Amino acid sequence: MAKKVGFVGLGIMGKPMVRNLMKAGYEVTVCDLVAAAVKEVEKDGAKPARSAKETAEKTEVVITMVPDSKDSEAAILGSGGVLEGSSKGKAVIDMSSIAPGASQKIAAACEKAGVSFLDAPVSGGEPKAIEGTLAIMVGGKQDVFGKWADLFQPMGSATYCGDYGAGNTTKLANQIIVALNIAAVGEALVLAKKAGLDPEVVFNAIKGGLAGSTVLNAKAPMMIAGNFKPGFRIRLHQKDLNNALQTGKEIGVPLPFTALVQQVIGSLVNEGKGDLDHSGIANFLEDMAQCTVSGK
Amino acid sequence: MAKKVGFVGLGIMGKPMVRNLMKAGYEVTVCDLVAAAVKEVEKDGAKPARSAKETAEKTEVVITMVPDSKDSEAAILGSGGVLEGSSKGKAVIDMSSIAPGASQKIAAACEKAGVSFLDAPVSGGEPKAIEGTLAIMVGGKQDVFGKWADLFQPMGSATYCGDYGAGNTTKLANQIIVALNIAAVGEALVLAKKAGLDPEVVFNAIKGGLAGSTVLNAKAPMMIAGNFKPGFRIRLHQKDLNNALQTGKEIGVPLPFTALVQQVIGSLVNEGKGDLDHSGIANFLEDMAQCTVSGK
Repeated sequence: MAKKVGFVGLGIMGKPMVRNLMKAGYEVTVCDLVAAAVKEVEKDGAKPARSAKETAEKTEVVITMVPDSKDSEAAILGSGGVLEGSSKGKAVIDMSSIAPGASQKIAAACEKAGVSFLDAPVSGGEPKAIEGTLAIMVGGKQDVFGKWADLFQPMGSATYCGDYGAGNTTKLANQIIVALNIAAVGEALVLAKKAGLDPEVVFNAIKGGLAGSTVLNAKAPMMIAGNFKPGFRIRLHQKDLNNALQTGKEIGVPLPFTALVQQVIGSLVNEGKGDLDHSGIANFLEDMAQCTVSGK
Repeated sequence: MAKKVGFVGLGIMGKPMVRNLMKAGYEVTVCDLVAAAVKEVEKDGAKPARSAKETAEKTEVVITMVPDSKDSEAAILGSGGVLEGSSKGKAVIDMSSIAPGASQKIAAACEKAGVSFLDAPVSGGEPKAIEGTLAIMVGGKQDVFGKWADLFQPMGSATYCGDYGAGNTTKLANQIIVALNIAAVGEALVLAKKAGLDPEVVFNAIKGGLAGSTVLNAKAPMMIAGNFKPGFRIRLHQKDLNNALQTGKEIGVPLPFTALVQQVIGSLVNEGKGDLDHSGIANFLEDMAQCTVSGK
């Protein structure tokens, strides 16, 4: 008999995650504020619920996948939310990418109600959500992780990172490195281009050495082609960096490099470039230099 | 019959490069301001010269390997320098890591004298100099590169990057990316550590994704161990970033991220940490957070 799983939040990521859970034999009850999104996965076999509360009432464990901290708090702790429908012994797994402090707040409320909680944000975007190969970073109690580890399998590969919030802290560490590695590649290629070099030659000359990175391999060709089609949108990276700076402020960690790239991203969003791929961070540096990495 | 090569500058890098040239059958005439360094390679079969000028007089091509722009200019253009001993048809290959603008100035003086010039800085440090596996980034005229390409083989792998200065511009692009990737890893791991996570768990969770890089794999373990033994010294990276900012100023490319890491490095040098490995950039971020990545 299929295990009963609830899923709240049927966005670009949530929909393929639900489908992969159903393919693996889970019975999935879903809810979303957007009725059309519910209809879509209903066609594939998901059962609709009218609220997050009802989703929890009908299932043993509820996964939430929403945009940011306030959305997770509303979906789980709010009126008509998951916790209202959860009784002792049930579990909530928040796979949203939010501030670790918000995860800890939600975890405390769940613990008080006798409900298990994990924060389990993902990395890899829509393509890996569809493939079921997301990287899943998990925070919470280790025995709870052990109990629900199988549930992650249809969606990707899960790593236990530490106590409540550790999944989101690990995700923030990841996003800090990615944003800054993009800025580094942008600055290096703009300098090379305006100096008269072919950025592709520079890319090929350095990619095998200490400057080599997954970002260099993935994003330098986009900058060279002038193609900033997402991929991962600048405005989503903005949210992550805001959460990183918020966390740094809360725990006393100055983050000067993260702060600089967050300012750059803020400027790009103001310019209407929030829906470019995050490799578009290079646009800011190109504008400063009045020189594009792409073209002659 | 062995081809006659001159080599000026017998530092940590120069000595093994000379040895590899001799192993490959070249007859190498050397000079250095430090008599002891000359004696060392003389024992291995190098022929001593009293000056850069004499080195050039006795050979067809002279390689220079000195610390910075002013040293290259002095060794090649100065009184008693390589150019004074070079006649039409000879060649000068400057393998020092200097400002591209200085390479262009030296190139112009060489061209005027009918002497060929290449700028050919290297990446890989002492271990790869010893192995003969340096990455060599070459700027200058393509036919001159073609003529001397074989000479690079005993020292490493050479890539043609463009006209005069392009070797050094490519090297600066490399150094910008490396310094900022180190800063990114430092900031991410300090945040994770002070949030109560095990930095090694975070490293393992993210290294396979978009945050993955050669810097992450090489430097995160050093930060986690609190081991900043060089490797590549902070004060050498300082020189490269100074040259990058100088070049940016000359050609109109603002480099805000490079400027920030250069300020951080300046502070570390002031603190007496210039001889740490460049992964010690993390020290600055650790001090700001009053938290080390290493230890409990």
